[in-house]
Amino acid sequence: MTGFSFAIAARDGAARTGVVSTPRGPIRTPAFMPVGTQATVKGMYMDQVKALGADVILGNTYHLMLRPGAERIAKLGGLHRFGGWTGPILTDSGGFQVMSLAKLRKLTEQGVTFSSHVDGSRFELTPERSVEIQGLLGADIQMQLDECVALPNERAAIDKAMQLSLRWAERSKRAFEAQPEGRALFGIVQGGDQPDLRIASARALAAMDFPGYSIGGLAVGEPQEVMLAMIEAVMPHLPEEKPHYLMGVGTPDDLLAAVARGVDMFDCVMPTRNGRHGQAFTRFGKVNFRNARHAEDPRPLDETSSCPAARDYSRAYLHHLVRTEEMLGSMLITWINLAYYQELMAGAREAIARGAYADYMAAVREGWARGDIAPWQG
Amino acid sequence: MTGFSFAIAARDGAARTGVVSTPRGPIRTPAFMPVGTQATVKGMYMDQVKALGADVILGNTYHLMLRPGAERIAKLGGLHRFGGWTGPILTDSGGFQVMSLAKLRKLTEQGVTFSSHVDGSRFELTPERSVEIQGLLGADIQMQLDECVALPNERAAIDKAMQLSLRWAERSKRAFEAQPEGRALFGIVQGGDQPDLRIASARALAAMDFPGYSIGGLAVGEPQEVMLAMIEAVMPHLPEEKPHYLMGVGTPDDLLAAVARGVDMFDCVMPTRNGRHGQAFTRFGKVNFRNARHAEDPRPLDETSSCPAARDYSRAYLHHLVRTEEMLGSMLITWINLAYYQELMAGAREAIARGAYADYMAAVREGWARGDIAPWQG
Repeated sequence: MTGFSFAIAARDGAARTGVVSTPRGPIRTPAFMPVGTQATVKGMYMDQVKALGADVILGNTYHLMLRPGAERIAKLGGLHRFGGWTGPILTDSGGFQVMSLAKLRKLTEQGVTFSSHVDGSRFELTPERSVEIQGLLGADIQMQLDECVALPNERAAIDKAMQLSLRWAERSKRAFEAQPEGRALFGIVQGGDQPDLRIASARALAAMDFPGYSIGGLAVGEPQEVMLAMIEAVMPHLPEEKPHYLMGVGTPDDLLAAVARGVDMFDCVMPTRNGRHGQAFTRFGKVNFRNARHAEDPRPLDETSSCPAARDYSRAYLHHLVRTEEMLGSMLITWINLAYYQELMAGAREAIARGAYADYMAAVREGWARGDIAPWQG
Repeated sequence: MTGFSFAIAARDGAARTGVVSTPRGPIRTPAFMPVGTQATVKGMYMDQVKALGADVILGNTYHLMLRPGAERIAKLGGLHRFGGWTGPILTDSGGFQVMSLAKLRKLTEQGVTFSSHVDGSRFELTPERSVEIQGLLGADIQMQLDECVALPNERAAIDKAMQLSLRWAERSKRAFEAQPEGRALFGIVQGGDQPDLRIASARALAAMDFPGYSIGGLAVGEPQEVMLAMIEAVMPHLPEEKPHYLMGVGTPDDLLAAVARGVDMFDCVMPTRNGRHGQAFTRFGKVNFRNARHAEDPRPLDETSSCPAARDYSRAYLHHLVRTEEMLGSMLITWINLAYYQELMAGAREAIARGAYADYMAAVREGWARGDIAPWQG
């Protein structure tokens, strides 16, 4: 069994391509991780997710601790066996969703107590308990518990949350020592939209020597330029040879721009959530299948795609499925979107390896700007 | 291109096994037809439906005339191309769902006018228009428009609806003459729970010489014994060498019992609808995955199944998916149920061919009576 490691194979400006090695298999970076919130990537079979080229998926500690419960998953052989995913799994700490979903939250130095949004039952999440839960799930890459504040916010509140997150990072790291070799715990940079607080956070975490670093608390409503400025501020202070994970981001353009600034890993609900609502991401920008212009369009979404969902069904049929709220519409457009996100990352890896990442970004953005293929003239 | 025909290969009592030949391929009988209401079998890829051994699927004229519309589907190349199903498709006449779903219905000798349950827009359905719509869809096997009354009901009302359905059968048959060779129009026996009315309906339809005969207006709330008594009353008066289709039926036991009485074809939403609600049909009876007893059960539903959904996921995982209302729960249990219905019919065909249908029924019922495999002792 090999341990956890990261090897950079090529650089192009600040962008890098490489491989995160885990005992459950390699993760080619830059990597997009499909979100498997409740031990399932919504509307997808795990075989399909794998076939798209995803090396790793994400699980949500908050949802899984509520249902079916961490101890229950452990008893059933862990999250991999439970959900049928044999590759690496990354879990978040639960903190972000406690703040966005749970009720009756009470935050103290010790941790956070809250009521389940499902049935109101009480839970406590501390740095130690979060790491324990992620260990019970059997997560290959785990996150420290952090406090993530909404933006915009007062500097004092951002600073306080960042400092608390650093103390929780220390506690998480100590708690994580009990876990088997080969797993990794990432520290999470906080500091909102304040560059100096972000830098202070990054430096303090770097001094703790984590095997990987996450950038949290972004894509919470701020403009893309603020997000990118924060990434730029932070990167010089994070160990360069360790993987950099931008949490919960983002649009295809966010991914391109963040890769250019040295980010290696991403996760986001956008391809799956928007897919369920009829919005497809494509080489030619976004396509909203609710729109009546597709109603009689016999063409597939993208006949050159390697994804059957983009290639083997007419736009008129996808439109019909979305309008009639058929499950298959969600299934097909989710599939299309996850395929596109994987294709985008595969293209980035290949372009960085040839030293042509800027050209790749330009070409991809040109495709989006072109907009959808010319409207069909029935 | 071969035409439409039916060849009986073997008989066992009143049960028969054979093949309905259509230009789009054979239908092995007894056959269960998965319901593809809105040009999709809910939660399934057509490839999966085919791989389960389904030879034919059903489409609903009422739903398809509302959305996306028959003329639109015709413009897009027909229902087969639209939904991606290359085998034969059977469509109903729309009449049953007009009666159960549409609003502001007005029934006359001419036909029925109604408002869409989706957006209130007005439609008219006559025997001629129903056949025209089914032709535009490109259905291989079509149904005459009929009037189907709820049970129990007054004899006079049942009689009146049956007589109207006979006049509509004549009109449907004339309208159908415009359609290409190889397609078939079935007449529909009505008559509620009144044996003599059923017999009168069957005789009158037989005299019109249809290529197949449906038994409609059953499984509308009456006890199974009434349904079986009606089938028994009708069968001696239907041409023996033509396919017999029992519409909208039913439970696995209904299928077994109806096959024993000479029925060749079935359709029902039960395997798909119940699947979406967490109820699985199995060799050992029904299993409700909402039930907490599955929460920590690591066993698959049926490890000897050829269906991956029954074989490759734990009961605990299926329970979790149902409880969290994940799409994958509906997808997997629908898959399990359609697999079981196909397996049930494949077993019936094989048993009839060997002259052992009574033994087959007994063995299948013994499995159900045994109930689910012994509860798991965690």
